[in-house]
Amino acid sequence: MRVEIWSDIACPWCYVGKARFEKALAAFPHRDRVEVVHRSFELDPHRAKDDIQPVIAMLTAKYGMSEAQARAGEENLGRQAAAEGLAYRTRDRDHGSTFDMHRLLHLAKEHGRQSELLDALYRANFAEERSVFGDDERLVELAVAAGLDAGAAREVLADPAAYADEVRADEQEAARLGATGVPFFVLDRAYGVSGAQPAEVFARALDQAWGERSPLTPVQDGDADACGPDGCAVPRP
Amino acid sequence: MRVEIWSDIACPWCYVGKARFEKALAAFPHRDRVEVVHRSFELDPHRAKDDIQPVIAMLTAKYGMSEAQARAGEENLGRQAAAEGLAYRTRDRDHGSTFDMHRLLHLAKEHGRQSELLDALYRANFAEERSVFGDDERLVELAVAAGLDAGAAREVLADPAAYADEVRADEQEAARLGATGVPFFVLDRAYGVSGAQPAEVFARALDQAWGERSPLTPVQDGDADACGPDGCAVPRP
Repeated sequence: MRVEIWSDIACPWCYVGKARFEKALAAFPHRDRVEVVHRSFELDPHRAKDDIQPVIAMLTAKYGMSEAQARAGEENLGRQAAAEGLAYRTRDRDHGSTFDMHRLLHLAKEHGRQSELLDALYRANFAEERSVFGDDERLVELAVAAGLDAGAAREVLADPAAYADEVRADEQEAARLGATGVPFFVLDRAYGVSGAQPAEVFARALDQAWGERSPLTPVQDGDADACGPDGCAVPRP
Repeated sequence: MRVEIWSDIACPWCYVGKARFEKALAAFPHRDRVEVVHRSFELDPHRAKDDIQPVIAMLTAKYGMSEAQARAGEENLGRQAAAEGLAYRTRDRDHGSTFDMHRLLHLAKEHGRQSELLDALYRANFAEERSVFGDDERLVELAVAAGLDAGAAREVLADPAAYADEVRADEQEAARLGATGVPFFVLDRAYGVSGAQPAEVFARALDQAWGERSPLTPVQDGDADACGPDGCAVPRP
């Protein structure tokens, strides 16, 4: 079974939702048969790379919150994160473009290090004092911590076209599947879960997708030239 | 969209079927949005690593063919392969265990080199004079030709447990999806194609799976804590 998770590094509910999903997955009896793929989604796709601002300022300017509302939201997110064992810095975080981070996540995917890099990026953005925006060498350090090669990460960062199509393709696929926000979980392209649901909902989704698989629709009309345990089909003359 | 292809290196119809599928994929307008994953299937899973025999002897002993039938089958496969532009050595090929090759294909998957290694293994098994069985260094050479690290390939070959679970998991998944032979193609876990069908059938399968996607079944009951273009949900108190 495959679970695809669309998320953004700048999305606090994605950070919390990943932990909740992983709690459910750890308790799922068929967890060894579940492949998890992380997919790109930018909440703020038009933000320029050098356009960095404090999260509170972004929340008040973009979403019309009062500063008190924005601060209360961050405090509440801090409590929700803590309930999942996650550190969360409720003050003085930055907001910026996550495009380069998504491009690095596609490099990491090719090396089987996607989940590790996503964890490192979340931790850097949500838990650490130092900003993760506007500092390519910081991203290289995180990539190396996730098991990637520093040179390969630098090459990706230096070339804005590297993995750009892969990021856009993930985003188009999310739209095609009906996602309007993140985190967005898709199980075997049949079941969907929106948002940082409680672990029990993810457990139910895993059970349903595993147990209620609908049969494949065969496309071919006729017999197949195939090989099976009793030999290969005798080729048609 | 994702296409999973179960196949075995020892399966001539898988060799031919991969070429036919790729012909259809090359003409598919959304080909850039199609991810292809190769999955393991052993036609002869109980064969010991050192149990190597000529294909003709295997066909007569295991499937009760006469030697003339077996040779005619190989000649016919040679013609079908040639029609796809593939070289096929109709005489004196060997048969043996493909387990180690499938383990290497899982290493290659982690490095984004799965299709390349599968092509190299097919070519080595079906087209070249030198046997691909019983020669670990030959497999290392093929892995290197496909872009993998020689040391990593040697480590996998030296440890029979490396990627063994991944091979078995692919095979269990094939059984769960109803596959009894290979090649077996699954599109977005919704449509199935059995056998080395003509390219037109693969084209139809791609069109159907792309166009007739059924909507996802939502699993959650309630509202989601999620972030979207209009901001993140205000956390529940």
